[in-house]
Amino acid sequence: MSEPTTHPARPLADLSADELAGFLAAQQAAYADLSGRGLKLDLTRGKPAPAQLDLSDELLHLPRGSVDRDGVDTRNYGGLEGIRELREMFAELLWIEPDQIVAGGNSSLVMMREVLTDLWLKGGVDSERPWSQEEKVTFVCPVPGYDRHFTLLDWFGIETVTVPMNDDGPDTEAVAQLVASDPSIKGMWIVPTYANPTGSVCSLEVAERLASMPTAAPDFKIFWDNAYAFHHLTEDEAKSADILSLASAAGHPHRPIMFASTSKITYAGAGVGFLAGSVETVRWYITHLGKGAIGPDKINQLRHAQFFGSAQGVRDHMLRHRELIAPKFAEVDRILEERLGGLGVATWTKPKGGYFVSLDVLDGTASRVVALAKDAGVALTPAGASFPQGRDPHDRNIRLAPTFPEPADVAAAMEAVATCVLLAAAEKLADQA
Amino acid sequence: MSEPTTHPARPLADLSADELAGFLAAQQAAYADLSGRGLKLDLTRGKPAPAQLDLSDELLHLPRGSVDRDGVDTRNYGGLEGIRELREMFAELLWIEPDQIVAGGNSSLVMMREVLTDLWLKGGVDSERPWSQEEKVTFVCPVPGYDRHFTLLDWFGIETVTVPMNDDGPDTEAVAQLVASDPSIKGMWIVPTYANPTGSVCSLEVAERLASMPTAAPDFKIFWDNAYAFHHLTEDEAKSADILSLASAAGHPHRPIMFASTSKITYAGAGVGFLAGSVETVRWYITHLGKGAIGPDKINQLRHAQFFGSAQGVRDHMLRHRELIAPKFAEVDRILEERLGGLGVATWTKPKGGYFVSLDVLDGTASRVVALAKDAGVALTPAGASFPQGRDPHDRNIRLAPTFPEPADVAAAMEAVATCVLLAAAEKLADQA
Repeated sequence: MSEPTTHPARPLADLSADELAGFLAAQQAAYADLSGRGLKLDLTRGKPAPAQLDLSDELLHLPRGSVDRDGVDTRNYGGLEGIRELREMFAELLWIEPDQIVAGGNSSLVMMREVLTDLWLKGGVDSERPWSQEEKVTFVCPVPGYDRHFTLLDWFGIETVTVPMNDDGPDTEAVAQLVASDPSIKGMWIVPTYANPTGSVCSLEVAERLASMPTAAPDFKIFWDNAYAFHHLTEDEAKSADILSLASAAGHPHRPIMFASTSKITYAGAGVGFLAGSVETVRWYITHLGKGAIGPDKINQLRHAQFFGSAQGVRDHMLRHRELIAPKFAEVDRILEERLGGLGVATWTKPKGGYFVSLDVLDGTASRVVALAKDAGVALTPAGASFPQGRDPHDRNIRLAPTFPEPADVAAAMEAVATCVLLAAAEKLADQA
Repeated sequence: MSEPTTHPARPLADLSADELAGFLAAQQAAYADLSGRGLKLDLTRGKPAPAQLDLSDELLHLPRGSVDRDGVDTRNYGGLEGIRELREMFAELLWIEPDQIVAGGNSSLVMMREVLTDLWLKGGVDSERPWSQEEKVTFVCPVPGYDRHFTLLDWFGIETVTVPMNDDGPDTEAVAQLVASDPSIKGMWIVPTYANPTGSVCSLEVAERLASMPTAAPDFKIFWDNAYAFHHLTEDEAKSADILSLASAAGHPHRPIMFASTSKITYAGAGVGFLAGSVETVRWYITHLGKGAIGPDKINQLRHAQFFGSAQGVRDHMLRHRELIAPKFAEVDRILEERLGGLGVATWTKPKGGYFVSLDVLDGTASRVVALAKDAGVALTPAGASFPQGRDPHDRNIRLAPTFPEPADVAAAMEAVATCVLLAAAEKLADQA
């Protein structure tokens, strides 16, 4: 191990030309050493590790029986809204009423696509016409954000306008200004709790403003993707703002559509997705769903209801996830601090929950860092992935996803990332010098 | 029990006015008696009976382990096309290659909606433009047919033109004539094997013609919904025509899109749906699917692969279904024959597979029969349900679904149906006299 390479203990920008040349040479040597190790590591996607999936392996032997608490035979057709006992459990967790939530199949992303399809072809409960009949439809996208949200918009031909994602959520001033005057702006995405990738938590104040701000479009929608609502990494557990009540109180009950899932609670591939909203929104969704579906996999819902037992069971279960993944996040922070701290070449988030660390490197070097890492055998999410169309205007953001690899691999990968960040920074500064 | 009421042993139309009046009075008395019994029976939907679902209850304790034959951890994200061992099993059953089939979630109907959405918003592999940009899109619908197919078309605003469903499949002469000249006709539905509700089996000749006929639309699609491919009721097992090979041989490889599912093999609510087509069609579907989905429930797919063991395991399993439901179909036929035979007031199908009996009553009396049955406590599928927009131009078709109720209830329901058919017929004939 040659890491850590010489750490000059002051900002690289302050180095003399000679010092910088020496530093660059040291990084090139470190990188050459790294490349020779034949690494094969992957920090690309927010996937649970096998040890996390093991926490739910009781599911493989459930359900006990196949009849739910209401006497429904979950093996047969029907029940578009999902079984009541699981809806009640997640309604409690999300502070809503059971008739405001639908339990679906294994993917909340699929439910988002269904909602967009319905809005596109039919319009929402408060739309004047189907969105496809509008001249243009635009979404506000806080950035950095979740690549799959942007991909979905792109698929529909929905345009995007970005706003900064702050520590307390989207920049509400920027959002409010955009939506007030442009009726083509029909919606926005938010991951309100431990956002992907920044870890930001939408504050009550921000949520209130988003819920109440005047919008030129009468059918403006907030896609409130609460994918990490219960995914705490510390004892300081963030409480998601109660967007449905806030919107209702502000006179816009149909504005938010909430999504959640157990993909990162039980099994990523075989969990249960949820959609929530006003009673009218839920009815609207179910009505359209019923034109092309007979019902979700109720057995898997029963399996989940029995596995958790109660809302508290979900919370308890999340503590076990935290025990497994918090050390990996700590390792990411430790290595970044040790290798990059004080050098003025990178900043990164210290999330209290969720699945990601957002790393900002020197402007114009993110793509180079990802390419260097790739050549050294470390797969990173493509630079720019957290921006619509994959275009980071500053080419500086890199999303790190440390949950899946083993702790030792997280450390090895982060050492490699640090070397690549340093080399790219030194190259850039030397080039400018 | 007052049934069977007097059976005049000759066509009702041949009765004298006096005889008819007597017959009508007898039916009115029989119906009054029926209404007094407080029946609560349901022949509405093609649902498996609990005893059929029990056949698959080993699934509740599966899978053993969570790694598939390829070493994939089925608990995690990914694998849009479904796990290979299950795709191979159903590829064998459907005589196609594994790269021509996708294993999805719990519903083939949902896959049909996805395909229509993709065609609507993006166009197919051989489309000039998205279907939504066409002035008009029309589907050919053999009637009577499956109500959910029609509902789906209606939801998209796709128009329908009907053709007769014959014993050997859709009336190809009628279909060929329509599609040859009208470029707005973009597709057709077929349930090729044991069709809903007639039980018709699409012959090789019919399939060949449909696969090869010239169409004005370059991107004409056959939605080949093989929902009952393995659902035999007798030893005379129908073999589905190999539509993919036929279409490929005829130079239209992308024309058919095949659907199948285990909804009526294992669990109606928690089975696995399949889509099949040309390799290009499968790639097209997966590409669009990937914009809003990460992967199906692979654990449930593994569960199914382990439960069946092999393609032969599926066939063997279907024999057990047959043992349970064939007697119910026999009972339907026995009672209809006994009560209505020779009276010239009804004809019905004697299906060799599938889930339905299609009953044609005197023109103009189907709605009356269904209303009478309802008032007597017997729920039947709404008259006209097997036609687009629920409109049977002759008001004569009733779909009977005998699988779900207990055998004794099937018999009681059919006795009631027979009484209602006779009363409605006598009313009509008396009215015309």
